[in-house]
Amino acid sequence: MIRVLFAARDAAWPEWETPLRDAFADAGLDVDLARDHPADKVDYIVLAPNGPVGDFAPFTACKAVLNLWAGVEDVVHNPTLTQPLARMVDPGLTQGMVEYVTGHVLRHHLGLDAHLHGQDGQWRPDPPPLAADRRVGILGLGALGLACADMLRHLGFDVAGWSRRLHDGLPFPAFAGQDGLATLLRRSDILVLLLPLTDATRHVLNATTLAQLPMGAVVLNPGRGGLIDDAALLAALDTGQVGHATLDTFTTEPLPPDHPFWAHPGVTVTPHIASATRPVTAARTVAENIRRGEAGEPLLHLVDRKAGY
Amino acid sequence: MIRVLFAARDAAWPEWETPLRDAFADAGLDVDLARDHPADKVDYIVLAPNGPVGDFAPFTACKAVLNLWAGVEDVVHNPTLTQPLARMVDPGLTQGMVEYVTGHVLRHHLGLDAHLHGQDGQWRPDPPPLAADRRVGILGLGALGLACADMLRHLGFDVAGWSRRLHDGLPFPAFAGQDGLATLLRRSDILVLLLPLTDATRHVLNATTLAQLPMGAVVLNPGRGGLIDDAALLAALDTGQVGHATLDTFTTEPLPPDHPFWAHPGVTVTPHIASATRPVTAARTVAENIRRGEAGEPLLHLVDRKAGY
Repeated sequence: MIRVLFAARDAAWPEWETPLRDAFADAGLDVDLARDHPADKVDYIVLAPNGPVGDFAPFTACKAVLNLWAGVEDVVHNPTLTQPLARMVDPGLTQGMVEYVTGHVLRHHLGLDAHLHGQDGQWRPDPPPLAADRRVGILGLGALGLACADMLRHLGFDVAGWSRRLHDGLPFPAFAGQDGLATLLRRSDILVLLLPLTDATRHVLNATTLAQLPMGAVVLNPGRGGLIDDAALLAALDTGQVGHATLDTFTTEPLPPDHPFWAHPGVTVTPHIASATRPVTAARTVAENIRRGEAGEPLLHLVDRKAGY
Repeated sequence: MIRVLFAARDAAWPEWETPLRDAFADAGLDVDLARDHPADKVDYIVLAPNGPVGDFAPFTACKAVLNLWAGVEDVVHNPTLTQPLARMVDPGLTQGMVEYVTGHVLRHHLGLDAHLHGQDGQWRPDPPPLAADRRVGILGLGALGLACADMLRHLGFDVAGWSRRLHDGLPFPAFAGQDGLATLLRRSDILVLLLPLTDATRHVLNATTLAQLPMGAVVLNPGRGGLIDDAALLAALDTGQVGHATLDTFTTEPLPPDHPFWAHPGVTVTPHIASATRPVTAARTVAENIRRGEAGEPLLHLVDRKAGY
């Protein structure tokens, strides 16, 4: 009997209980899933960082903490966390992100906003350029960034990427390091932020780096709010250096109603919907990691505490 | 020396002249391209149906009429046309159509309009379903319909199609005939019209067929305006039977400023930009057909006069 503690907000339990029980059964795991196991009896914690567990010290027998979210910035630096920590890599989350990013890149590429806001009886028959003539830059080449790059390249976009460490063997131009960042930004008509939030990536978009984009570039941030210096972005929008920003993640969520992003005509706020973990597919990732833990195999998607992701 | 007449509006000449000359040179063709050859000396007519040639009788030596547009409904029934007629199948046009259709399908799938029109400070964190749970129906499985189906399937959408003749061996469900049309419509959350306009397809969307769609379905028409009975569509929008219509083609173009489509909140008008022929790529199709004509090989994309496309 494997004791798994579900440590998330109460509201999450109804949507997760059945998918998790099904995934454990499908994996042949004899699991006692509950929200109230005695701490010292817990084998695995299934964690939402905004849930009830903030102190991991009492979980003395816990073999791993399995995060339900892709982002771990709210838990990775917790000093009481001595257990291995795994990020969520959910095929459903990745798919949803690809759909969101592709949809918004096409929206900006095709100039859909002008059509939606300009139903004024004026016939302006100017077709947009083809995707091959639109340069898309992707910051962050993890599971999400690579999946988005693949789809955008399949659509014909001129894609390049940037990541902290240089990736070899990618089928598109990829850059790394501070010099590489400037190179990537200079060729990004549309920039997509899919970096993890770490000390190294906080405010990666700031007054200096925003100025390296082509005039009028579009910024798309379904990654993490902290990647952007909000004040610098607002200033760049006001000068036209940034033509539009579509933001799905924010330093404070929900984004307060009086935040200037809501009212700025150059900003589209979406309510952190790009990267929803989908319980049915994510539960399989949780089950597979418990199977691995029980079999003594290495866990998938283990977090590097020092790198922060 | 092959005499090619460029028969389009004056405004088209500057954008076509260089791509056509380049394509003829690349194909090794010795072409005299002009807008004023004597009619009886013309070997090939490069035609825009809204251009200066309406009477084909004087072109007694003409071996073929090469249409610059995908649609031939304005020329195919011309009684003076005895020469072979070829449609335009332009890789650039197909690519542009794929981008337009994919962009607008994702727009409706993701609910982008609600985000663009609803920047009101309210945080509504409801992620859309995944593409696998969205049924897209495509009417018309020619070069454009198949290319759009491929891309939408690659994105994960649940795609099915319909065409006049049954296609075998397609990797997705396809239907034909009147019964098949009802079947396709009943499973189309988003319906894309990519049929040629013929006597058989005129008003294919009418009061009867619109009622076969799921309540609230989205209609996307980048095909031809005449495929839709406008009055029936407006009625279906008013009852909510059709949730939204995004229309790129119209019975009369430019769409008159006082047409109710412009003002209806359930309609997005785009100004016939989905299927722009791109001179650089289209000129290669023209050159290839002249090469074939001179070599005695069958022309590409020959129009079946009886079928009308």
